[in-house]
Amino acid sequence: MFSPAFDDLVQRLRVLPGVGPKSAQRMALHLLSRNRHGGLDLAHALNHAMHSIQSCVMCRSLSEKEVCNICASNDRDQHLLCVVESPADVIAIEQSGSFKGRYFVLGGHLSPLDGIGPEEIGIPLLLSRINHEEISEVILATNATVEGQATAHYIIEASKNLPIKVTRIAQGVPQGGELEYVDSHTLSQALQYRLSVR
Amino acid sequence: MFSPAFDDLVQRLRVLPGVGPKSAQRMALHLLSRNRHGGLDLAHALNHAMHSIQSCVMCRSLSEKEVCNICASNDRDQHLLCVVESPADVIAIEQSGSFKGRYFVLGGHLSPLDGIGPEEIGIPLLLSRINHEEISEVILATNATVEGQATAHYIIEASKNLPIKVTRIAQGVPQGGELEYVDSHTLSQALQYRLSVR
Repeated sequence: MFSPAFDDLVQRLRVLPGVGPKSAQRMALHLLSRNRHGGLDLAHALNHAMHSIQSCVMCRSLSEKEVCNICASNDRDQHLLCVVESPADVIAIEQSGSFKGRYFVLGGHLSPLDGIGPEEIGIPLLLSRINHEEISEVILATNATVEGQATAHYIIEASKNLPIKVTRIAQGVPQGGELEYVDSHTLSQALQYRLSVR
Repeated sequence: MFSPAFDDLVQRLRVLPGVGPKSAQRMALHLLSRNRHGGLDLAHALNHAMHSIQSCVMCRSLSEKEVCNICASNDRDQHLLCVVESPADVIAIEQSGSFKGRYFVLGGHLSPLDGIGPEEIGIPLLLSRINHEEISEVILATNATVEGQATAHYIIEASKNLPIKVTRIAQGVPQGGELEYVDSHTLSQALQYRLSVR
């Protein structure tokens, strides 16, 4: 519209998830009219992050160092390994404050049709870590979706001869969930895995 | 969370309008996990746009050149000048395809309480252009808000001794508007400025 640099900026802003042509235009106009300093800071932060953040060689999560803070920490329980699909899941679990072990990030789930097999989601590295480290329990925290369950199942099979405990995070009624609105699969899981309270 | 560069990126993404902490985190993870190339391109486009796009010296809209494409074009009617509040309004009118004159961008509206007076929205430049160019009609296309109306009214007063026609864009029922849902002020404007059709 105004210039090639403006059109290019609007186009590039659309790489952000959830940003369509109208939002991109609004963002570009906002930065140019009211916050050029913020725009330049964002450009710098993007450049720095894209170049400096890589995968941790131990857990495959995001890190600026070769080994991420969580893997390098002596305060984390080295016997517990929590397997998740993505770095976002690590953030979610850390924010819950209820896990003090370490993580392994698959970076996706098994999806043979898309050419994503065990190698692509780091299963060989996971098994090698279980073999060579003092891990006593692997907690499977892949998503409660069909693909997440299938991936968890694959790991259970692949590790069945290893001398470790393998657990799966509980499925059931979420906090604040009203039974009336909970889907029937979740309810049947909640009933099947009911806990003894007395 | 993962590293200072990650936290910094999430923080900087929040300069974008409509982006809160959760969206910013999702955007950062998306770029890092799936589209680093897109992230670098965006950084480059931001840098380039923030440095190269300035205000057109004639119309105060956004431009990479001293005089923007619209002001420099010989195909635009030099007798018509449309006054709008922001560059976004120029885009909206251009997209309607129904105006072939040139623009003047105020860059806001009068707001004495915020220290925004006639100088800040370029009224002296506007009056000087009307005086020195062959402008025969000024179309006031400020927003149909209280502030936009007050700004239009100020321009009408300031230009009352100049030998030009001053018009205001029509107010009325918008296309597709159902009378039942149109506010009463709009309806009263639509009735007051009714057009003779036969």
